[in-house]
Amino acid sequence: MLELLNTRRSVREFKADPVDEQDVQDILEAAMNAPSAVNEQSWQFVVLSGTMLKEFCTINTNTPKGAAVGILVCLDLKAEKAKGYAIQDCSAATENILLAVHAKGLGGVWTTVFAQNADKVRALLAIPDGIQPFSFVPIGYPVRKPAKLKNGFDKKKVHKNTW
Amino acid sequence: MLELLNTRRSVREFKADPVDEQDVQDILEAAMNAPSAVNEQSWQFVVLSGTMLKEFCTINTNTPKGAAVGILVCLDLKAEKAKGYAIQDCSAATENILLAVHAKGLGGVWTTVFAQNADKVRALLAIPDGIQPFSFVPIGYPVRKPAKLKNGFDKKKVHKNTW
Repeated sequence: MLELLNTRRSVREFKADPVDEQDVQDILEAAMNAPSAVNEQSWQFVVLSGTMLKEFCTINTNTPKGAAVGILVCLDLKAEKAKGYAIQDCSAATENILLAVHAKGLGGVWTTVFAQNADKVRALLAIPDGIQPFSFVPIGYPVRKPAKLKNGFDKKKVHKNTW
Repeated sequence: MLELLNTRRSVREFKADPVDEQDVQDILEAAMNAPSAVNEQSWQFVVLSGTMLKEFCTINTNTPKGAAVGILVCLDLKAEKAKGYAIQDCSAATENILLAVHAKGLGGVWTTVFAQNADKVRALLAIPDGIQPFSFVPIGYPVRKPAKLKNGFDKKKVHKNTW
């Protein structure tokens, strides 16, 4: 099962094929089974499709267009018990989303919702106070089979018992 | 393969059995195959065992004692190209560590290196400037088969196209 972790790729070009609702549900389930600080689960998710997805991508231009669906991961600062840890919770959830997407034979990529776009995204999606857009994963079937991931292992980054 | 994501548990009690070096190597490989902002890979790892692991746990008292080995994940602020994103990179790497640990039939838990302990950890491990201890995962064989994970899925946290 390590293969899942070692073969995930960033996918930025998508076929027009729709993504099954059950797949989206399963991906969200994996996201919410990520660990979180003191189990605070300080995350919220907005699933975007159709016009809203298009409008989101017009605002957040670093997100690739053309995905069938996408998941916006938001920091839930009201649920955050360990101050400052919502970013770690939502990063773990985002990684689980990417891995679940890959497990399904779908593709996606972790994109940031930049601070300068956050207010427009909040307005578009009617996101309430205390909820902060964090990352967005567009999801769809990859246009082509992605090239094999270059193994990121770097022995220079591993230290044994002392630096 | 979603099962891997949905059955990971936090494990805090460990058997005395050693962990195979190849397993540690495979876990580190999975860690470094995590995504990172602009592929900056702003992470470094210190593998702790024996006396150093014991001393680390004496400093960072929130880390459970008794693991055979452990991996300290550090922010590499010199490698960070996208300012502020090392935390996200290292969170994704930490989640991959936990999932690889679980895939191996081992157990572990994401523990924080608190700011008040960071300087002592840096001194113990001779960690250079620009490298910041972030998280620590103790790794070993679980004392008991963990109870099934309560599914974290919460439909109240899912919003469709608008809040």
